[in-house]
Amino acid sequence: MKFCSNCGAPLSHRIPPGDTLPRHVCDACSTIHYQNPKMIVGCIPEWEDRILLCRRAIEPRYGLWTVPAGFMENGETTFQGAARETLEEANARVEVGPLYALYNIPHINQVYMLFRARLLDLDFSAGAETLEAKLLSEAEIPWEEIAFATVRNTLTHYYADRRKGEYQFHFGTIERASGRPV
Amino acid sequence: MKFCSNCGAPLSHRIPPGDTLPRHVCDACSTIHYQNPKMIVGCIPEWEDRILLCRRAIEPRYGLWTVPAGFMENGETTFQGAARETLEEANARVEVGPLYALYNIPHINQVYMLFRARLLDLDFSAGAETLEAKLLSEAEIPWEEIAFATVRNTLTHYYADRRKGEYQFHFGTIERASGRPV
Repeated sequence: MKFCSNCGAPLSHRIPPGDTLPRHVCDACSTIHYQNPKMIVGCIPEWEDRILLCRRAIEPRYGLWTVPAGFMENGETTFQGAARETLEEANARVEVGPLYALYNIPHINQVYMLFRARLLDLDFSAGAETLEAKLLSEAEIPWEEIAFATVRNTLTHYYADRRKGEYQFHFGTIERASGRPV
Repeated sequence: MKFCSNCGAPLSHRIPPGDTLPRHVCDACSTIHYQNPKMIVGCIPEWEDRILLCRRAIEPRYGLWTVPAGFMENGETTFQGAARETLEEANARVEVGPLYALYNIPHINQVYMLFRARLLDLDFSAGAETLEAKLLSEAEIPWEEIAFATVRNTLTHYYADRRKGEYQFHFGTIERASGRPV
């Protein structure tokens, strides 16, 4: 961030009066440009004992598997975002259920929110950012080819909860130092 | 958003190739400037049967009461943000507990996340954006002077849950058409 998006003047980077953190500040028009974390919203689309996963056709993690998820947009709710991403990535319609997992990823300024969801029909296919969309049983989950730690952790909890017969909300933080890719 | 924050050139507003929504796009340097919802993080600081509320010294809702909460910052987790806001607004130290309520507010592009928290000591006071920080019992809650619908709803659930003897996670959406101020 080098120029003011309001007036086009060059920005300074300093702590504004009354604030505690350095911000991008415009000395010409006095606008303060805050930068805040972004939400990634998605779901686990369920069909009987299988779930719908997508193999990524984009970077990062091209070729690896994920649940349908992406950046939440302005003007939508978290669960609407999860349904929209599922439609975009897998051309699939879901009824979004309860929030299942929330992960903080502070070093990349993201918060992941993944819902359970009911896949409404089998008329799905790979979207533009997906190589392949597929219903998989637990035995078929490609654990070594999961794109993100958030998804790997969520699916691990998901199958453990399923065996216990009770799904509970999971909350966690993905640290940079985990040694595994996020 | 009128100018590119990367190169300072004027921006167009159009749907980029492969996208579905109009974005602020720079024709000079090809940067796409996405705008996404922001998270508000906060907590209900508990001390025995009382909770810590703050009377706002800033707009919006100057003079009305809220739990400590504010915009989540880059580089922190949701619960770290909740603790930081409590320190800033009420000079109070808390141990943040479980996520208690999540509210979508799509018409202002916000998601509220409020945690339960344990107030660690009674050495609190009004921060710079607070007129007054006060421990209140249920009977003392100024229901008609609560700043935001999210906070009013959360506290209503909180006392109902307390009577039931079991706190459960609450998830909801605040609609513009509610007729009550958000």
